[in-house]
Amino acid sequence: MELTFALRGNILYTPACGRLELRPQQYLVCEKELVAGIFTELPERFRGIPLHDHGDRLILPGLVDLHVHASQYAYRGLGMDMELLDWLEQNAFPEEARFAGMDYADAAYRVFAEELTRSATTRACVFATVHRPATLRLMELLEKAGLRGFVGKLNMDSNCPDYLRETTEGSLAETRRWLEESAGFSGVRPAITPRFIPSCSQRLMDGLGQLRREYGAAMQSHLSENLSEIAWVRQLRPAAPFYGAAYAQPGLFGGECPTVMAHCIWSGEEERALMKERGVFLAHCPQSNMNVSSGIAPVRVWLREGQKAGLGSDVAGGAHLSIFRAMTDAIQCSKLRWRLVDDSLPALTLPEALYLATKGGGAFFGKVGSFEPGYEFDAIVMDDAGLPTTRQCTLAERLERVVWLSDGLPLAKYVAGRRLF
Amino acid sequence: MELTFALRGNILYTPACGRLELRPQQYLVCEKELVAGIFTELPERFRGIPLHDHGDRLILPGLVDLHVHASQYAYRGLGMDMELLDWLEQNAFPEEARFAGMDYADAAYRVFAEELTRSATTRACVFATVHRPATLRLMELLEKAGLRGFVGKLNMDSNCPDYLRETTEGSLAETRRWLEESAGFSGVRPAITPRFIPSCSQRLMDGLGQLRREYGAAMQSHLSENLSEIAWVRQLRPAAPFYGAAYAQPGLFGGECPTVMAHCIWSGEEERALMKERGVFLAHCPQSNMNVSSGIAPVRVWLREGQKAGLGSDVAGGAHLSIFRAMTDAIQCSKLRWRLVDDSLPALTLPEALYLATKGGGAFFGKVGSFEPGYEFDAIVMDDAGLPTTRQCTLAERLERVVWLSDGLPLAKYVAGRRLF
Repeated sequence: MELTFALRGNILYTPACGRLELRPQQYLVCEKELVAGIFTELPERFRGIPLHDHGDRLILPGLVDLHVHASQYAYRGLGMDMELLDWLEQNAFPEEARFAGMDYADAAYRVFAEELTRSATTRACVFATVHRPATLRLMELLEKAGLRGFVGKLNMDSNCPDYLRETTEGSLAETRRWLEESAGFSGVRPAITPRFIPSCSQRLMDGLGQLRREYGAAMQSHLSENLSEIAWVRQLRPAAPFYGAAYAQPGLFGGECPTVMAHCIWSGEEERALMKERGVFLAHCPQSNMNVSSGIAPVRVWLREGQKAGLGSDVAGGAHLSIFRAMTDAIQCSKLRWRLVDDSLPALTLPEALYLATKGGGAFFGKVGSFEPGYEFDAIVMDDAGLPTTRQCTLAERLERVVWLSDGLPLAKYVAGRRLF
Repeated sequence: MELTFALRGNILYTPACGRLELRPQQYLVCEKELVAGIFTELPERFRGIPLHDHGDRLILPGLVDLHVHASQYAYRGLGMDMELLDWLEQNAFPEEARFAGMDYADAAYRVFAEELTRSATTRACVFATVHRPATLRLMELLEKAGLRGFVGKLNMDSNCPDYLRETTEGSLAETRRWLEESAGFSGVRPAITPRFIPSCSQRLMDGLGQLRREYGAAMQSHLSENLSEIAWVRQLRPAAPFYGAAYAQPGLFGGECPTVMAHCIWSGEEERALMKERGVFLAHCPQSNMNVSSGIAPVRVWLREGQKAGLGSDVAGGAHLSIFRAMTDAIQCSKLRWRLVDDSLPALTLPEALYLATKGGGAFFGKVGSFEPGYEFDAIVMDDAGLPTTRQCTLAERLERVVWLSDGLPLAKYVAGRRLF
């Protein structure tokens, strides 16, 4: 692997939310997996390093998917006419059960890993199933592909079909063993993953909190996605003043526990205040929120509050793995929210959506998602030559066209300084 | 051209709204541009006719785009962060002005015609610009490509930039000349196209009504798209009890005048009752309605009322020419409307969206959009082999995957019995 090299092309990134930096025909230098800088001419110390000339193409930070279910990839786009509970029972649960068999798990996760590799996503927070061996296989496949991210073996000891339900002790024992067996991984790390509060008993959550402290793992789950779910959680955890408090009580809600929560559509002020205080990441999954009729999250409020936030595809609640698609879905949803719910909250702009898709979500992984010096070198190269127009476009307009119109598949992709293709 | 031939493959269509017919591995016979029938074995009288064997692929009726601006194709996906009026002034109007020059018009309309040909759309209602020669050029290109549809030279004598504004007399004279010059076309026909009420004086509308009666032309325009537009029309036409009445008064709203109106998001009961009575088609353009923050049309109400309705891409308010995309946008918007506006109106289903995209919109062109005997033979062949999954899918599920996940480009396309590719 080349340790130091430069890309040349049209470089675009968002150092701050809504601020689009355009560097036409410049050099982006990678030095030991990190961004060394952007230069109009290569400085003396970089003369002679390998150059990947991407011509007139667009070079962007790799995209970040903060919430995706690898085990649901096989039925993306299916059952979109069903209600959430029917969809879970007819699609999600029976499919997840198949991951008890390693042959099926291997075949299905191979497809997922290949498609994620082809995509513009360089980092992801991934849900697997309750099955430890299959989850480890997924981690191997993603690590081998050169992708980075967190993967979670699910925990479920309540409110799910018998054929997927774990015992509390079994769930904790398997999770411990999985955390032990994950020690050998570097780019792909384990995240404690209780499916959501209704599928985990209090005793299971307490045990997961203990495991998290022992192993220093990250944590991911679902939060305040839809109103009947929230009402259910209120019944299940009457002592919790709000949904997020049921994660906070066992120590699984930010602070020393790096945490990302999907959806947060209906998170109220109290819940959001705790997320802000404890640095919990909010994963906005606009397409899934449409497909399962959940609603539209007030992302503008999150941005004003300074919440840590990014985008998620939420396959297979979302049908599309592309985070470019998540960007335009987020913009469109924010416009409908402005029109139909609250016209005091302006719609998201493209530079804001790009920030969420890169540096916003990237922060969950450390210094990721920007081309500022010291950031991990995640980059994608996008080609817009196949998108016909008679109009002369500026570089910012070419970005818009790539985001709105392209198939979202990069020509070249770099993750932490390694070129995947 | 072959007059009689058969396709073999998996045949899917919607003879009624929401009713999906599945005919796996059967024969679809075309006889003199019309559907002769679907057969499990070819009947005696069709033995020996040419067979196009499409194997395990999916054969659907061609899709119908009831509302698209050909002159805006060059900037689809651009300026989506702007408000409607800024977008019109910065994108739409300056671009439309370029169609005064035939070189530019030819180049831009060639791109549009090529992209529409590649797409799954077989019939379209197309807006051009105010320029007669360019509009005729567009009609030539579409007719030559073998597509069918209506094309409109725009009329604008009010409330638009000087560089696009016509005089009332000039607009009428050019429209008359254009209608005369369109006489030689067959598959592509002219539709009277006042841009919308604010851009047309009363005198111009009266003159267009007169021309319509003289030439028996169809009619297309915009209606009740957004609330400030509706308030503006109320000021401009104080005598009209509702927006649509301002079209009806000069005789441009259904009845003997085949009419399609884009958007109709905010059409009230009175307006919809008149549309129902006069058979005016409603073109639902969900993506545009998101992108320019207009709202979500109550399509479920339209269906219950028995309105004539179909889908439109509304490029470039919509960024995507694909009517498959319009189908999923329509479903997603209907889910958000259920959640955020009115939970008494269930979301649209995929078979309903397919009906709107085929037989619903197709009715504007006659017997179009179905595979029932006597329907014009418009068909597309879709391949789902490139969409990886480990799941065994039924034919209905394969349709879902094509609609949600494919790039929307058919492998083969037939329009009125002619194979385009």
